[in-house]
Amino acid sequence: MNFKLLHPEDIWPDKYFHSLDKYSFGVWNMNPGGGRFFKANRKWISTNTKLDLLADAGVEYIEAHDTDLLDLVLGEKAADIVGYPEDMSESEKMALMKKAATKFKDELAKRGQKCGVFTMNLFNSEKEWNFGNYGSEVDEVQRLAIQRTLAGIEAAVEIVNAQVYVYWVGSNGTDGLFSAFHPKRISRTREALVEIMDKSVAKYGDKMCPFAFEPKPEEPKFKMYYGTAASALACVFRITLERPDLGKFMGLNIEVAHSLMGKTDPAMDYGEALEAGKLFHIHENAQGEPAFDRDLAAGDDSLVSLVDRMWQLKVAGYKGLLGADVQPLPQDRDDQMSATIIRTKRRVAWAVEQAKKLDDTIMKKLQANHDQAGILDYLDEVVFSMK
Amino acid sequence: MNFKLLHPEDIWPDKYFHSLDKYSFGVWNMNPGGGRFFKANRKWISTNTKLDLLADAGVEYIEAHDTDLLDLVLGEKAADIVGYPEDMSESEKMALMKKAATKFKDELAKRGQKCGVFTMNLFNSEKEWNFGNYGSEVDEVQRLAIQRTLAGIEAAVEIVNAQVYVYWVGSNGTDGLFSAFHPKRISRTREALVEIMDKSVAKYGDKMCPFAFEPKPEEPKFKMYYGTAASALACVFRITLERPDLGKFMGLNIEVAHSLMGKTDPAMDYGEALEAGKLFHIHENAQGEPAFDRDLAAGDDSLVSLVDRMWQLKVAGYKGLLGADVQPLPQDRDDQMSATIIRTKRRVAWAVEQAKKLDDTIMKKLQANHDQAGILDYLDEVVFSMK
Amino acid sequence: MNFKLLHPEDIWPDKYFHSLDKYSFGVWNMNPGGGRFFKANRKWISTNTKLDLLADAGVEYIEAHDTDLLDLVLGEKAADIVGYPEDMSESEKMALMKKAATKFKDELAKRGQKCGVFTMNLFNSEKEWNFGNYGSEVDEVQRLAIQRTLAGIEAAVEIVNAQVYVYWVGSNGTDGLFSAFHPKRISRTREALVEIMDKSVAKYGDKMCPFAFEPKPEEPKFKMYYGTAASALACVFRITLERPDLGKFMGLNIEVAHSLMGKTDPAMDYGEALEAGKLFHIHENAQGEPAFDRDLAAGDDSLVSLVDRMWQLKVAGYKGLLGADVQPLPQDRDDQMSATIIRTKRRVAWAVEQAKKLDDTIMKKLQANHDQAGILDYLDEVVFSMK
Amino acid sequence: MNFKLLHPEDIWPDKYFHSLDKYSFGVWNMNPGGGRFFKANRKWISTNTKLDLLADAGVEYIEAHDTDLLDLVLGEKAADIVGYPEDMSESEKMALMKKAATKFKDELAKRGQKCGVFTMNLFNSEKEWNFGNYGSEVDEVQRLAIQRTLAGIEAAVEIVNAQVYVYWVGSNGTDGLFSAFHPKRISRTREALVEIMDKSVAKYGDKMCPFAFEPKPEEPKFKMYYGTAASALACVFRITLERPDLGKFMGLNIEVAHSLMGKTDPAMDYGEALEAGKLFHIHENAQGEPAFDRDLAAGDDSLVSLVDRMWQLKVAGYKGLLGADVQPLPQDRDDQMSATIIRTKRRVAWAVEQAKKLDDTIMKKLQANHDQAGILDYLDEVVFSMK
Repeated sequence: MNFKLLHPEDIWPDKYFHSLDKYSFGVWNMNPGGGRFFKANRKWISTNTKLDLLADAGVEYIEAHDTDLLDLVLGEKAADIVGYPEDMSESEKMALMKKAATKFKDELAKRGQKCGVFTMNLFNSEKEWNFGNYGSEVDEVQRLAIQRTLAGIEAAVEIVNAQVYVYWVGSNGTDGLFSAFHPKRISRTREALVEIMDKSVAKYGDKMCPFAFEPKPEEPKFKMYYGTAASALACVFRITLERPDLGKFMGLNIEVAHSLMGKTDPAMDYGEALEAGKLFHIHENAQGEPAFDRDLAAGDDSLVSLVDRMWQLKVAGYKGLLGADVQPLPQDRDDQMSATIIRTKRRVAWAVEQAKKLDDTIMKKLQANHDQAGILDYLDEVVFSMK
Repeated sequence: MNFKLLHPEDIWPDKYFHSLDKYSFGVWNMNPGGGRFFKANRKWISTNTKLDLLADAGVEYIEAHDTDLLDLVLGEKAADIVGYPEDMSESEKMALMKKAATKFKDELAKRGQKCGVFTMNLFNSEKEWNFGNYGSEVDEVQRLAIQRTLAGIEAAVEIVNAQVYVYWVGSNGTDGLFSAFHPKRISRTREALVEIMDKSVAKYGDKMCPFAFEPKPEEPKFKMYYGTAASALACVFRITLERPDLGKFMGLNIEVAHSLMGKTDPAMDYGEALEAGKLFHIHENAQGEPAFDRDLAAGDDSLVSLVDRMWQLKVAGYKGLLGADVQPLPQDRDDQMSATIIRTKRRVAWAVEQAKKLDDTIMKKLQANHDQAGILDYLDEVVFSMK
Repeated sequence: MNFKLLHPEDIWPDKYFHSLDKYSFGVWNMNPGGGRFFKANRKWISTNTKLDLLADAGVEYIEAHDTDLLDLVLGEKAADIVGYPEDMSESEKMALMKKAATKFKDELAKRGQKCGVFTMNLFNSEKEWNFGNYGSEVDEVQRLAIQRTLAGIEAAVEIVNAQVYVYWVGSNGTDGLFSAFHPKRISRTREALVEIMDKSVAKYGDKMCPFAFEPKPEEPKFKMYYGTAASALACVFRITLERPDLGKFMGLNIEVAHSLMGKTDPAMDYGEALEAGKLFHIHENAQGEPAFDRDLAAGDDSLVSLVDRMWQLKVAGYKGLLGADVQPLPQDRDDQMSATIIRTKRRVAWAVEQAKKLDDTIMKKLQANHDQAGILDYLDEVVFSMK
Repeated sequence: MNFKLLHPEDIWPDKYFHSLDKYSFGVWNMNPGGGRFFKANRKWISTNTKLDLLADAGVEYIEAHDTDLLDLVLGEKAADIVGYPEDMSESEKMALMKKAATKFKDELAKRGQKCGVFTMNLFNSEKEWNFGNYGSEVDEVQRLAIQRTLAGIEAAVEIVNAQVYVYWVGSNGTDGLFSAFHPKRISRTREALVEIMDKSVAKYGDKMCPFAFEPKPEEPKFKMYYGTAASALACVFRITLERPDLGKFMGLNIEVAHSLMGKTDPAMDYGEALEAGKLFHIHENAQGEPAFDRDLAAGDDSLVSLVDRMWQLKVAGYKGLLGADVQPLPQDRDDQMSATIIRTKRRVAWAVEQAKKLDDTIMKKLQANHDQAGILDYLDEVVFSMK
């Protein structure tokens, strides 16, 4: 029997049926600012206020980390807590998480919204993540990462009905030269993934939600394991080689800024995943060159590249959400809390429109001849109306 | 009369007389960790504990931001405050700063330490810095940055007798494409510098301390004005063209990681400043490639390049301090609070020793022929004892 | 007396009077292709054919290296020669150069074209440049570089009446770590520049043409001296400090791809030079991220950034030429020899038009508040007609 | 049956049995220099002279492109030919290639040398490669790339008995944004690989030689398909999913400079391939940061990182050759033709020695705790004898 990679819309026809027309943003895409080099410039706002702002912006699908939602239970005091309250036991924390997820589901329903992405915060929710997550050689850290993910998938499937569960690689990386015997950390990472998928698929069967890897090459750590789109894809294939029953539920969430941080072309990363039926979700934004993680609005660096990406999605028949991961600028005012989101959504919509204007027969012919000069002339004319 | 650039040791013979034998680290080089992607892994420790640790490590010169020292007055509650207490007036804040600086001076004296660098925090001490500092088009922000700096120079000269007052460019940059008409922001930045230097030199005359620009190309902002060593040097020359009386007190503090973030060779940046008599201070550390600001221990990326830098300093007769700016790794334990400092100091000392082992006659002859292959053979033999 | 930096249009009112309406391309922007990793895909064409193609494209100002023009004297056999014929003496070479420059002038005149840039090839015209040029520690190499440049300036002023003489830093750099004591190479480079300017200004006085430094951070060498726009500017200021009579004739030719290779924002580099009255010429093109020198058509990476640059020029009142330095793509056909030139010119014109559409009162107000979100909303509306 | 990735030493026990003690360099690692920005500084030397120089340097395994060897048949006139003589038919070219390969085998035997790598030049041997190779949409280009590779594998297996046949991705990439619908080019590339492997394995069965992908992220083209180690690995896994009989013969040749150009850590890339039993060969060299392809001697940027890589190989039990791909520096003299090779070999040997000095029990324990500070202290002591 010949192996076949499945397309997500074949596995989850009810989830993957969009036509480049549904947007998905994170509640963490609005925040007070601040950090290592800044003091917060904006007031804290509640999850409910965020959902209102997203609804105002016409955003139907919402993404959230577990820890983003705790204020739905704890109220305003959540503003002062990084991650979970330190005095809680693990089971209390997970009980709190499920309660918050349930409230989240209700709040979404009230506004006609749905959960785009659910993901467990494996970076600043606990001190443990300073030591990595799935691939950590510290057993308790690896164990906690697995358990949290299982709880997160449970919430994603049973409570919020997320389009995708996302695993962002986070701190699962190195601290510089010599920090690890890499094959060991890579094996441990994959073993954890297999355990997570094995238990989840055993539990949910066909109701298992899409599990999407979100690679990032660096930051917070020096370099991350499975930190590029291609490396994450290699991991999915590798698992598929041994456990096709698990691999079929695994795919990628490719983030534009992460690709650019690692000097790969995000359009090409999209293409590599699309060709394998493994592009489960996207995170549009902008970055420009390799640098710190900027999370700018899509198109802030280049609209041409944004149209290229949307055109790849169009021609490939991508059926997922138009997700994005963007941050307010440091100096954005309280009344500009959702400005980056609005700008991103407007431009992605514009870019989809441009991509649709490009005649595929013409494009195909030009590309068949590798006639890049001709392609760009055609683009200037159709998209930018240059004479 | 022919213009002459002065060397720092000609202007401040009492300050610039070292022989690559005195180390300078910041109290901020020990901290609990945490941030955008991590939860703090270590306990907060007081300035006094930090000074003890630095003394244990054999560090004689200490660097500090104003805001690092507030616990000397406020005690442990300073641990929970980012920057200055929000309910204080500006004059109360500056009074607190001077009080803390005075305590700092006393604590240094107790331990036989001296102030290497004093610098005002123009990044996360106030919300205003979200809008830049000297070059901000918001007048109140620019004004506050000037006043704070004047107060800082006062503390540096009159209280702590710092070897160097440092201006790190911080957030004085852009937010991406179109964010400013660049000539305007550049002019404003230089005007602020001229005002600061003019007032300070008028006040202190020959007692004026060295004022060192610390460039950084990006992070926190998209790109910073005068953000590279060469650009900061151009600024100093430009001011010198119009106000040689001010320019002579201005020089650079070049940080290795900042050079590498901007793809310049830090050894070459050192050289460019040394050639002009403008290398007032250095910040050794490591980074590797362009990426987020890693502040690794010197040599964590390459010992060869560290020896190169020390060799440039040796041959040029650099008389300043061997300063560094490094951070603990995320997972460093409480008992490893100063591990990065100790590693850096050990390696810098080792590299100075290697640089001294290189015979300058041999090096000169090889370099005169651009015989890079010969140079590297010689280096392998002398420094790394390769056969 | 207060020092004043002059604007190029004050020194050369007859040369700097354009209004973002005159284009300048190099004859070397058309070529057969090939190189380290490719075999040439196109036929060799003569300088006359190139001038015809540029005339067809509406390009009025032409840029050339000395060695590009030798076929005007030697005919087709020049196609097989890299640089000058090896069997000629130096005086024969320079005689050939002047003869070729004279023919060039005549051919330009025939077509109503003028010389935008004249520059001496200090890279692959002779083996000597493997050892650098002005800053070489090999005396004969430095001497040859100075003599060639003096001959080039003579041709620029007396024969072709170039708008600008350009010195591209070329191979004047390092071979990696330890390759030089940097202050020495930097001093030698500046000394050579002073000698060149001193002799040329003594000879031509007010008829001296603008001398523009073209920095490039790396490639062919590891890192280049005065290799960034800011570093070249620092050099000009430094010379001006000691020799204002020479410094006033010196400025920059900033190339977009070179800025991007060094991780600086070309719009900011333009701005830094404009603020000092030192932007003598520009080389538009595209690159994207730091990588090998791509010389793509302007806008191939981002049209937004191209509009930003044109807007900086507009607001600053830049009076120079709209120069560019682009290469055909490897697979461009014989009939696409000038495709990259045509694409670049079309887009630069489009971007100037967009820049003019932006209302400066609105932009000024938004920028005065650092309201980047507002700026980008305005841009999307005015330039890209997004709703 | 459970899928098992095989280690190369299981498949080819006669080829993969080394103990980090055999070196492999390319005949192309000695050359006259020159190129886009330089004129050649050294005289052309014959393949036989190169083999002598390599023998003098103690290099036992030799790597070659088909086109490097043509002088063995054509004599000195080969010096003036790029690729194959243009007036030959394809069958004449391949006959010439086989004749040259046969001579190569004989010359190796004379000197007690063996063939480390055999590879077909799919970049500057023909004009066709301007349009890519395996993934080209131009059918004749793809077809020629397949045929050439089949001929190359034939020579590798039947004539020179190469340790590895290498496919360097070369020009199989994009020309910038919009240049292709990426899934199509990726599919075509993989299809070509499958055809090549299918025919070769059918022909040679267990005598099939290892086929190693050598990824490179960019240069000559904008971005390359399967251009990173992880992406090439994903390709191998993908093929293995459908054709495990072919996939088992496919692995990677990871080149340090290529990893660094793409901002991945080469030690981690080694690790990722080692973990999968897919590291068939390595190309050591140096690069530093992302930039043009520098091909410096191993360790020219960092000896610490070189020791890290050798340590990964040691712990993983790598049984392949210590291959390298380095270039002379532009100004290297005729008598320094093999200087970069000698420097590389010396340092790799030194680094292997250092790696062996590290006590694995100590390293394991430190790494198990993610104690990077402890690891680096241990390293400084053992490798660099720092106190």
